[in-house]
Amino acid sequence: MKMTTDDDVRVSVLGLGAMGSVLAGALVKAGYATTVWNRSPGRAEELVARGAEAAATAGEAVRAGQLVITCLLDHASVREVLDPLSGELAGRTLINVTTTSPAQSRETAAWAARAGAAYLDGGIMAVPHMIGQPGASILYSGSAEVFDEYRPLLDLWGDSTYFGEDAGLASLYDLALLAGMYVMFAGFMHGAAMVAPAGVTAREFAAMAAPWLTAMTGGFHGFAEVIDGGDYTVEGQQSLRFSDLGDILAASSDQGVSTEVVAMVQRLIQRQIDAGHGEEGFARIIESIRRPA
Amino acid sequence: MKMTTDDDVRVSVLGLGAMGSVLAGALVKAGYATTVWNRSPGRAEELVARGAEAAATAGEAVRAGQLVITCLLDHASVREVLDPLSGELAGRTLINVTTTSPAQSRETAAWAARAGAAYLDGGIMAVPHMIGQPGASILYSGSAEVFDEYRPLLDLWGDSTYFGEDAGLASLYDLALLAGMYVMFAGFMHGAAMVAPAGVTAREFAAMAAPWLTAMTGGFHGFAEVIDGGDYTVEGQQSLRFSDLGDILAASSDQGVSTEVVAMVQRLIQRQIDAGHGEEGFARIIESIRRPA
Repeated sequence: MKMTTDDDVRVSVLGLGAMGSVLAGALVKAGYATTVWNRSPGRAEELVARGAEAAATAGEAVRAGQLVITCLLDHASVREVLDPLSGELAGRTLINVTTTSPAQSRETAAWAARAGAAYLDGGIMAVPHMIGQPGASILYSGSAEVFDEYRPLLDLWGDSTYFGEDAGLASLYDLALLAGMYVMFAGFMHGAAMVAPAGVTAREFAAMAAPWLTAMTGGFHGFAEVIDGGDYTVEGQQSLRFSDLGDILAASSDQGVSTEVVAMVQRLIQRQIDAGHGEEGFARIIESIRRPA
Repeated sequence: MKMTTDDDVRVSVLGLGAMGSVLAGALVKAGYATTVWNRSPGRAEELVARGAEAAATAGEAVRAGQLVITCLLDHASVREVLDPLSGELAGRTLINVTTTSPAQSRETAAWAARAGAAYLDGGIMAVPHMIGQPGASILYSGSAEVFDEYRPLLDLWGDSTYFGEDAGLASLYDLALLAGMYVMFAGFMHGAAMVAPAGVTAREFAAMAAPWLTAMTGGFHGFAEVIDGGDYTVEGQQSLRFSDLGDILAASSDQGVSTEVVAMVQRLIQRQIDAGHGEEGFARIIESIRRPA
């Protein structure tokens, strides 16, 4: 089989939102023959000025590309755009980087298989301006062949990691990492709200919180070793009983702010203490999450 | 007034838990004449072997030191150890790095003032092995004179930041940063619990989550600018309506894990959407925390 090179692969990008536009832009810059399409007009102009071709319809875009990349609003948009084109996908490759759930990714993978297309699912762990820069990470699952064949193209966008043939895995990882992010953001907001009544600006708090939380991500590996080992009694851990958040809750109330963000963590801790595990390590709170109350 | 130097200041450290021991060890190593005391015996031996003096009682330790440092279990321990010694503190300086609430720090400051001691309150944003290493941050508030006079000593432990004369400020910052940490840990645990049923180890997830969340702390400053500016409608923000966590909640349920960690964030978002702010930026969730439901 002939290897794909920049010279002969034609790529089509469907969806020119903030993310789709920078993904397409990186391909154009690297010399790929790139066709672009967006549902609402006016988004292609800058890319066309830089060398992309604009397609008038999604069907035209699909027919122009050996490799079809979808970066749409959500799963419903993917189905709406692609369903009428199932007859056009046979023999092509579809890489879908739209944010979807694991179940939705698997559904699109099954649809692609019926349509005769090779399928790779992607989860973008970056905001648009990070694409092509250090720190941009993109997760993939689905066809290993597609991942290997298009790796040079995928690496233009960021660090590419492949998780396995189950097309839902990248989405699952994506959502798990996004969950961590949103929860961390809520923790940051809680801290900023606590110090605000003392005259501390959010900027001042951010300047302390960003390096502090970065340093504390260093603790994940130790928690993970305990969790994977399955023994929460190993020495050297901070115990659940020592991890009482009563001071933080009291200070939050004193400052007049909601306690709900921190109370969530306190409940995870308390359920393990109530079950008799107070002297075991903090990592044990994952058991409160694994087994819903 | 004579400046303090390593040669003439005598320091006493009360409390030789994991943290107190490394704080005292750093002083001994730097050549400070250091007296140490711990309620339960046997904790001083290693420090004595390295050159510290052991005191038999807390009173003996206080009388031996011009500068008295307390690093005890909690506020109750501080009161229990120091209350009987109020007559001994006059003319000395007390630096209390025990983790306490802002109100407790202010109480100890008032107690020290009545006892005739200068008072500085500290909050240690580090685990013991980080002391004296890059990344260790210690927050101070209370007497500016004490902070300035002993700055070279304090800097042996980590980066020293002074917040103001209100002795409760360092504790408030401390608890706000700890709140952020515990909430981030819960977010990490939630993500690890989500991917576990797919055969992903906690170690594998930690290897992705630590750099990801580190990168995402880069977003704090942008949120802070919006919060301090007070206008959540400024361009270029991710809107609250776009920040729907329904996919994450559904995937969590599909994986059989508790949704409570993420549902906490979703509630903060939803209250702002319900109040008509769905098109405003994500940073607005701080308003849900500032104004308890």
